[in-house]
Amino acid sequence: MQSVDLIIAPRWLLPIEPANTVLEHHAIAIKNGKIVAIQPAEIMRVNYTTKEYIELLNHVLMPGFVNTHTHAAMNLLRGLCDDIPLMDWLNNYIWPAEKKWLSEAFIHDGTQLAIAEMIKSGTTCFNDMYFFVPAAVKAAEEAGIRAALGITVFDVPTPCGDNAQDYLNRGLPLFEQYKNHPLIQLTMAPHAIYTSSDATLVEVRKAAERYNAYINMHVQETHDEIEQSIAKTGKRPLERLHALGLLSDKFIAIHMTQITPEEIELSAKTKISVVHCPESNMKLASGICPAQQFLNAGVNVALGTDGAASNNDLDMISEMRSAAFLSKLSEKNPTTVSAITALTMATLNGAKALGKDKIFGSLIEGKAADMIAIDLHHVNTAPAYHPTSALVYAANRHQVSDVWVAGKRLLDNHRLTTIDEIALLDNIERWERRISSN
Amino acid sequence: MQSVDLIIAPRWLLPIEPANTVLEHHAIAIKNGKIVAIQPAEIMRVNYTTKEYIELLNHVLMPGFVNTHTHAAMNLLRGLCDDIPLMDWLNNYIWPAEKKWLSEAFIHDGTQLAIAEMIKSGTTCFNDMYFFVPAAVKAAEEAGIRAALGITVFDVPTPCGDNAQDYLNRGLPLFEQYKNHPLIQLTMAPHAIYTSSDATLVEVRKAAERYNAYINMHVQETHDEIEQSIAKTGKRPLERLHALGLLSDKFIAIHMTQITPEEIELSAKTKISVVHCPESNMKLASGICPAQQFLNAGVNVALGTDGAASNNDLDMISEMRSAAFLSKLSEKNPTTVSAITALTMATLNGAKALGKDKIFGSLIEGKAADMIAIDLHHVNTAPAYHPTSALVYAANRHQVSDVWVAGKRLLDNHRLTTIDEIALLDNIERWERRISSN
Repeated sequence: MQSVDLIIAPRWLLPIEPANTVLEHHAIAIKNGKIVAIQPAEIMRVNYTTKEYIELLNHVLMPGFVNTHTHAAMNLLRGLCDDIPLMDWLNNYIWPAEKKWLSEAFIHDGTQLAIAEMIKSGTTCFNDMYFFVPAAVKAAEEAGIRAALGITVFDVPTPCGDNAQDYLNRGLPLFEQYKNHPLIQLTMAPHAIYTSSDATLVEVRKAAERYNAYINMHVQETHDEIEQSIAKTGKRPLERLHALGLLSDKFIAIHMTQITPEEIELSAKTKISVVHCPESNMKLASGICPAQQFLNAGVNVALGTDGAASNNDLDMISEMRSAAFLSKLSEKNPTTVSAITALTMATLNGAKALGKDKIFGSLIEGKAADMIAIDLHHVNTAPAYHPTSALVYAANRHQVSDVWVAGKRLLDNHRLTTIDEIALLDNIERWERRISSN
Repeated sequence: MQSVDLIIAPRWLLPIEPANTVLEHHAIAIKNGKIVAIQPAEIMRVNYTTKEYIELLNHVLMPGFVNTHTHAAMNLLRGLCDDIPLMDWLNNYIWPAEKKWLSEAFIHDGTQLAIAEMIKSGTTCFNDMYFFVPAAVKAAEEAGIRAALGITVFDVPTPCGDNAQDYLNRGLPLFEQYKNHPLIQLTMAPHAIYTSSDATLVEVRKAAERYNAYINMHVQETHDEIEQSIAKTGKRPLERLHALGLLSDKFIAIHMTQITPEEIELSAKTKISVVHCPESNMKLASGICPAQQFLNAGVNVALGTDGAASNNDLDMISEMRSAAFLSKLSEKNPTTVSAITALTMATLNGAKALGKDKIFGSLIEGKAADMIAIDLHHVNTAPAYHPTSALVYAANRHQVSDVWVAGKRLLDNHRLTTIDEIALLDNIERWERRISSN
């Protein structure tokens, strides 16, 4: 008999790989943070001894969500203002608040709040684009969550840099610093086509090549962005990025609304990943990413919430539902973005976008034990004829009961194990008072 | 000093009337199930003695949600099938299941499940359209929730009637039976234009006039419904209903997608109410109700979830968010359906649609104490710069902590007081096994 650290026997096991599989009466064995076996529970009992055995009678066990687009620390600006036009929002609220408040403490505390929210709603990895990366890394390390963090680059000054070269000079040494980190990955994150010159984008591409890094960027988020790019260069943003040599299987295009058939073809040909953020796109009236059309063309489509200042939460269950709903409505076809498609976008496709689908994103032998348990024994998910349907169309973030990252339990029956939630909320109230008094 | 039954002092009091009001440091006094005063908490302590004093340090207190379109008992068919075309869904799943299972027990137990879900997510009144009304009334009475229940009329046979006259013969005596019920209201509910002949609709109108009842009906839910009506009669559904004399301030038009400017004008002129069901319309790829355009024209727009078989939940917080998101996206304007507009649609406008806005729907003196408390001290609603934003864009059904209907506490710190939740879930599991084995 083989000895392992942990065996979990859930009511349903949803491994995501192989596709369209729901296992019942199965258990999963974990050793040294990795999955060593998935077998019928009866057989598992015969083959393995374990330090800990957890039976989850009413739960689905599945891979943790990969939230593939966040600005985590912006949680501190959640709901500061809503229901106003984008440029009014940026010019009169968000940018002045950032200018006034951005600091290492803001980033650490805001990221910690975001991580607490993410763990409690089942996210085990997030792909972030913001400022003061070491402060965000610290919050992620303290919590034990997996994260990709972008070296953000602008041509314009912000509290974190003066110009493109300054952002690069400050950011690039971090690749060396974190290169062997088990849970942290760095990416290049040029903000958007309207804040980066062609020369800057070429510099970013070269840096990405040097550090073998992924690039993630807001692309074709709004109609205005596309119009401005055409007016300035005669090219649409995606076309322009292609001409500059940025598009490859290491490029993550975030938002991607108002898409032409040629752009779907180009995305497939260049093997980029697309990150769909349906709730942010709806709330800001940005447009619609044709997620199912991208998937049909073979493009990898992941799911992201965007920052809490524009969403206003980091809830991947709700985001899956919105992705399914929006696709059905916009394609006039209730069969598009099915429940299992939404679940795959929210897990495995996020890992693929980050080039980490050999490491996490599904529950198969050899992968990291990044897992979540969701309790379906609730009045809002009963009956549960099909757990995939219950998860996407009826379940709720508060039904996430347990979360493991690399085998470490970060949420234990709804309780955070690595973050003091009471102290966190007290601290956030202090930030709230400070920010709202100005 | 005046003596009352209950005083509640929440952190924020959101009365909905007067519009755009958020009160802090205020308390509300309840006597005999009605609101007798809303005053600054300090003054309230001087003026009133009370049997019970509840302080809610982290909560918003607001009127309960009015879910203005449900098929409550269909909760038993939640998630039986999804992601398939509408006619396949109806012909091969829903209608066969209804034919096989509909009974008084099905209606009672399914409605009880729906009510448990609704109370736990803050709904204090629902407007239902389904079968076996007395069984549904029994479930509502046992729970103590407020409800409007429709006498459903079809031209076609179902397990509950053979033809229009049969439905009327069975249904109309109920008006007499429940006419003095404090919490139950009956309505006429012709199912839709494609299941009711003109002659049937005229009979329904006459019955509604006789009993001074409201009429609620699915209207212009889909493109096909409109095309079929034009092919058959040369008229669009709303136009046809107007010609038959059905449109008035006692007519509740549910869904109302693919709307022309003339139809908005006609709706305003005839003073009908519109019920917007954004999630059902998205999930079934039905279309978009231009909620903000109706509101701008002075039409009363309420909010409904539709049945759990097509939504798949009865969550009014999520429905408010979807209404706000969908409006912003479809109108290409992030200022439409603001947070306070969504909250008003989900409360007061539902009461108006049912002709009961003098009785409930907002927290003002003299109205019934139909109130809910929502705890914002959570990682997903911190910070809370504006409680209306937190409620609509970040809060979650599980943050609803307490619910009162006519002053009776139906949810006490997340615990149902009138429904045995464990027994209910056991019973629903038995239904699930029976239905899924067939």
